Amino acid sequence: MHNELRRHIEEIVSLTDDEYSLITSHFTLQKFKKNDFLIRQGESVKYTYFVISGLLKLVYYDESGKEHILSFAMEDWWETDYQAFYSTSDATMSLQCLENTTVLRITLKDYHHLCAILPKIVLFFLKKATSGHVASQQRLLSLLSSSAQDRYEQLLHRYPSLFQRVSKTLLASYLGVSRETLSRLTL
Amino acid sequence: MHNELRRHIEEIVSLTDDEYSLITSHFTLQKFKKNDFLIRQGESVKYTYFVISGLLKLVYYDESGKEHILSFAMEDWWETDYQAFYSTSDATMSLQCLENTTVLRITLKDYHHLCAILPKIVLFFLKKATSGHVASQQRLLSLLSSSAQDRYEQLLHRYPSLFQRVSKTLLASYLGVSRETLSRLTL
Repeated sequence: MHNELRRHIEEIVSLTDDEYSLITSHFTLQKFKKNDFLIRQGESVKYTYFVISGLLKLVYYDESGKEHILSFAMEDWWETDYQAFYSTSDATMSLQCLENTTVLRITLKDYHHLCAILPKIVLFFLKKATSGHVASQQRLLSLLSSSAQDRYEQLLHRYPSLFQRVSKTLLASYLGVSRETLSRLTL
Repeated sequence: MHNELRRHIEEIVSLTDDEYSLITSHFTLQKFKKNDFLIRQGESVKYTYFVISGLLKLVYYDESGKEHILSFAMEDWWETDYQAFYSTSDATMSLQCLENTTVLRITLKDYHHLCAILPKIVLFFLKKATSGHVASQQRLLSLLSSSAQDRYEQLLHRYPSLFQRVSKTLLASYLGVSRETLSRLTL
């Protein structure tokens, strides 16, 4: 079981069976239903999640209740409110299922423990943190400089499956445009 | 020399003198004048930079020539076009000095070599990559959800010294507002 995680890690570092057993002993499998919350804005953040199957949204609700989507997370993604997770402060965003979702979760304590006893996993996490930083920098660049039309095309190009799995309202929120503006965007 | 880097690393992992010598042997000191470019959009990206003194801007020029500021980098910051650096592709952004600047630079090959021979530095780079990811996620949240006034106040709160060191035009570009809008923002 959990072969998704092994395949995912072995894209970066190879593992013996014993090493992989050691890794999985630090994770817990958890299943959620559509609309369930893994993280709620204002509450504590205990885990980082690796998505085995399903789809989630990382969102921020502003004071007026308006929803802003920071990212979607699907198969092979790692997601949490990183600021809150690493600093053990309360969540400033929520993580909610858009489909039935299965994840492997790890606590901060187990994350540190695993890094201490298995140096090669640190290289893996470094690569993942770097990719996360790069993706955020690219999304920032896109938000600062691109038109809504360009952002729509970039998203379609990178994650074509999202357009079948996510409502137009959510796509509009991710792109930072109104539902009406999204309807006018075409390819 | 380079005690700035040692102090900076030792905030996260402690080092022996030999380990620190090993680390610095992978870096090169380089001095730049105000307005010099460390990275030019469209050219290759050979280094990641650690800022010892000075101030830089990481910018993207869109097709109309308009400047978009992704971040400012000052003392103790690591900066580069990470996407281009890690994938050895051409820069999609530029890194330019706003003041005379001294940096320590490292190539991707030396970065990987250092990680391979000194496991504790991987933990340090993981912490830095994580912080970078968190900072990008927070800036993304701020751009998606905050008013220009709120973004101005957040910036002033986090980096008060920037307001003495950077022109109003650059601040406006960072905040994603016009120079006129910035003039109306107050505290």
